[in-house]
Amino acid sequence: MNMTDRPRPELRSAYRHFLTIPTRWMDNDVYGHINNVHYYSFFDTVVNGYLIDRGALDPMAGAVIGLVVETKCNYFEAVSFPEILQAGLRVARIGGSSVRYEIGLFRGEAAHAAAQGHFVHVYVARATRRPVPLPDALKRALTPLMVS
Amino acid sequence: MNMTDRPRPELRSAYRHFLTIPTRWMDNDVYGHINNVHYYSFFDTVVNGYLIDRGALDPMAGAVIGLVVETKCNYFEAVSFPEILQAGLRVARIGGSSVRYEIGLFRGEAAHAAAQGHFVHVYVARATRRPVPLPDALKRALTPLMVS
Amino acid sequence: MNMTDRPRPELRSAYRHFLTIPTRWMDNDVYGHINNVHYYSFFDTVVNGYLIDRGALDPMAGAVIGLVVETKCNYFEAVSFPEILQAGLRVARIGGSSVRYEIGLFRGEAAHAAAQGHFVHVYVARATRRPVPLPDALKRALTPLMVS
Amino acid sequence: MNMTDRPRPELRSAYRHFLTIPTRWMDNDVYGHINNVHYYSFFDTVVNGYLIDRGALDPMAGAVIGLVVETKCNYFEAVSFPEILQAGLRVARIGGSSVRYEIGLFRGEAAHAAAQGHFVHVYVARATRRPVPLPDALKRALTPLMVS
Repeated sequence: MNMTDRPRPELRSAYRHFLTIPTRWMDNDVYGHINNVHYYSFFDTVVNGYLIDRGALDPMAGAVIGLVVETKCNYFEAVSFPEILQAGLRVARIGGSSVRYEIGLFRGEAAHAAAQGHFVHVYVARATRRPVPLPDALKRALTPLMVS
Repeated sequence: MNMTDRPRPELRSAYRHFLTIPTRWMDNDVYGHINNVHYYSFFDTVVNGYLIDRGALDPMAGAVIGLVVETKCNYFEAVSFPEILQAGLRVARIGGSSVRYEIGLFRGEAAHAAAQGHFVHVYVARATRRPVPLPDALKRALTPLMVS
Repeated sequence: MNMTDRPRPELRSAYRHFLTIPTRWMDNDVYGHINNVHYYSFFDTVVNGYLIDRGALDPMAGAVIGLVVETKCNYFEAVSFPEILQAGLRVARIGGSSVRYEIGLFRGEAAHAAAQGHFVHVYVARATRRPVPLPDALKRALTPLMVS
Repeated sequence: MNMTDRPRPELRSAYRHFLTIPTRWMDNDVYGHINNVHYYSFFDTVVNGYLIDRGALDPMAGAVIGLVVETKCNYFEAVSFPEILQAGLRVARIGGSSVRYEIGLFRGEAAHAAAQGHFVHVYVARATRRPVPLPDALKRALTPLMVS
């Protein structure tokens, strides 16, 4: 892999909202590190948790739900249970029916992200699973997360 | 199922150590509840986290490791992401090579456990995977967790 | 732990239905074994998979769903990715609204279970989450699984 | 999201090795679909399973292990338990210490991938966790997976 292609770890100041995510014993793999898969669980925890807390997503009953169409993550430093992560969240792009969330994961008080990535939600009607315009409540919730 | 066989939910005072465990989006199943499987991840997180924090377990390099030989859980109330759980821990029995941990999971400030169960560790030599007497550091760590 | 309390590994002939469950990389923990937590995922995979395949459970739309009220597992032998397991299933008890499923997990062609346990479902109305009599389609599906 | 940026689902013929991966009950999320996170578990299962089966990776004892530095996935179609997936694997690029694996996930007999992505391993010495040249056994194992 050409190292020049790789994104550089970002600072906490690049993110707009933070959630504390303690690791779990089971997150560790045979090498004693959090398995790469679980990072994506941290991504959807910070995104959906933010939306639920602000009344912008009701997973069991809301008319509009978010489906994931693309995810990506770069891993810079290994993390191990029982470390506690901070997940930083921002919104990089809002489309007609979609939102690109970007997430950085920070170890304890570290300045730079140990991993970072993105997560694209397309918002669809629960019943038809067809894309819909972003609801106003969702747009309002996203505003404080936006970066230019 | 004969309901009289079922254990009753215990109080927080029945436990000796507590750990906050936030739920994750992925813990929810199709019914919108934390899947029964994840409760056991909470069990081994509170047990192993306690031991690691007190220097009584070194999962990557220690000479003695804990293998799980029996687990059980009773579920009293549904829990859903983004709820935050408190895991209560106590030790009910110490044998020559084994320890029976008992765990209660509490929703937020609830007085009674939403679920409770146990977890039996047999401590073995990492190299041979044969049972060994409990190391002194482990016994010292367990003492404050014991109930009569 | 008093070893005389422990159940003995059962034979395949003690089970009535089998499902092949390949392990996954992520199932392994830091000790290189399938983590104890995942065994419960194998339990609900064989139970719910059996019911869905026979039209006795429709997780997204059915009027009746199964909630888990108790689970237990005894672990006899370590299993490691990429091993392939066979999950054996039987029904030990049928109540008014509940079913006790018992599961044995076998490594490859092994005669004895590497782990075994149970899983109690209470069947409830999706809307109210209150127990309901077992639907006829469910009872019919359970009949071939029953042991005396 | 600009739909023109999205990759198109590929055909099975674009992949060189296949592994059957049955879904599990717990893979389903509240929307009744396999959660996006689990796709990455399928990725590292097909990659590491392939390498272990060919003697090119020994996760517990080998001198060289593969650490994940980047992963990505595009999701084209929802998948639900109890569907059975086929994971297709190829190698797109081999560097001095790194390999880019590409994976397509196919539903049953479907011609086009329901999801596809990549997974970059950097191979490091177990003891130092520093990158090392790819071992010969690994290179030999990768050869049949290469696409031009």
